[in-house]
Amino acid sequence: MIFKADEENDSGGIVKLMSGGRIDPEDFPQLHGDGDGVESLCPPFNFGMVDMGIYRSGFPATENIEFLKTLNLRSIVYLCPERYPDGMADYARSSGIRILQFGIEGSKEPSVTNLQDAIMGALNVLLDIRNHPVLIHCKRGKHRTGCLVGCFRKLQNWCWTSVVEEYIRFAGAKTRVSDLRFINSFDASRMRLCVLGIIYRYHGGCSSQARRISYGDMS
Amino acid sequence: MIFKADEENDSGGIVKLMSGGRIDPEDFPQLHGDGDGVESLCPPFNFGMVDMGIYRSGFPATENIEFLKTLNLRSIVYLCPERYPDGMADYARSSGIRILQFGIEGSKEPSVTNLQDAIMGALNVLLDIRNHPVLIHCKRGKHRTGCLVGCFRKLQNWCWTSVVEEYIRFAGAKTRVSDLRFINSFDASRMRLCVLGIIYRYHGGCSSQARRISYGDMS
Repeated sequence: MIFKADEENDSGGIVKLMSGGRIDPEDFPQLHGDGDGVESLCPPFNFGMVDMGIYRSGFPATENIEFLKTLNLRSIVYLCPERYPDGMADYARSSGIRILQFGIEGSKEPSVTNLQDAIMGALNVLLDIRNHPVLIHCKRGKHRTGCLVGCFRKLQNWCWTSVVEEYIRFAGAKTRVSDLRFINSFDASRMRLCVLGIIYRYHGGCSSQARRISYGDMS
Repeated sequence: MIFKADEENDSGGIVKLMSGGRIDPEDFPQLHGDGDGVESLCPPFNFGMVDMGIYRSGFPATENIEFLKTLNLRSIVYLCPERYPDGMADYARSSGIRILQFGIEGSKEPSVTNLQDAIMGALNVLLDIRNHPVLIHCKRGKHRTGCLVGCFRKLQNWCWTSVVEEYIRFAGAKTRVSDLRFINSFDASRMRLCVLGIIYRYHGGCSSQARRISYGDMS
């Protein structure tokens, strides 16, 4: 009843999302958990853990605040150019969370220079563990966030196939070739030199903790 | 050139994966990174970070070993009934990684009792931080791993919508209603009592560290 055969051609228990089949969580009203006196926690849409102290998501709303509190965030890297909405800004202010904005236009094509500047600035924030725990987000956690995480993975020296696989997992049907082209053209080796500078300044050399940040080291 | 409009109807820069469009990483040969003398790291297929010290993936292969070394794994929770392949078993043995097997049949429908027993056993391993860092995997990191992570999220008191969203992100077009039904029927409140027992034994009470494991506590 529970686990179906793990075969490519098994279509019995598999919902064909590709062909328009949709799963609605409302089809499965929660049987347990919400009724035992514990308030449930709602992560923001497209939430995921990138690495120790680094999270990603779509735009968080006030109903996600109880969940966000459990992350003990110190910073938010916000990738949209729009002003931060009041409810979330109030929460950040009262919790001592710094919002670091690197506005990338979502509705227009920014100049490559501006885009690269924004990504480089955001990467500098991610790599400085004094900003951790940090949440990266844009509007849906797909394109701008996907580009930043993709560049971060290149810094971590992930192979290209894995970088693309992760990007697609979060972007789904909204995957953009232009994003992948941007990540692909990002020159991690240039940034890596800056990273080693940061590590040297804040961690006193290429310690094992520093290696977690930059696997591609010079030891 | 890089970022397209963030609109539902924008199809210019969006690859229509739903309608058969496919992105092949080979279409974007890596421009940088592999050429600067640093060996690239390949995470296993469907790799992701579940929580601090808990990772998930599809079946790792020997080409993933260099990446796995960076995780400093202490344990592997293996959810298939088949014998562990020699190459990976050798790596685990030589690295002092314990392989904890909770075999769930992938090609047949196991009895609900057996399945629940396997998931409960695996959850006990996940919740004991003496086993961390731990990698959960089955064959593709979709169904068995998705069920275990889904039950773990219920223990963390995630709302149902977020549990389903995460399951689908990793299972994609192979999403199974039967898996969601199993996760849905999992009674987290029963398990939570055991969890609090474990926390009490190993962490000396409901400290903030213990709260990270079980948000839904009795404080």
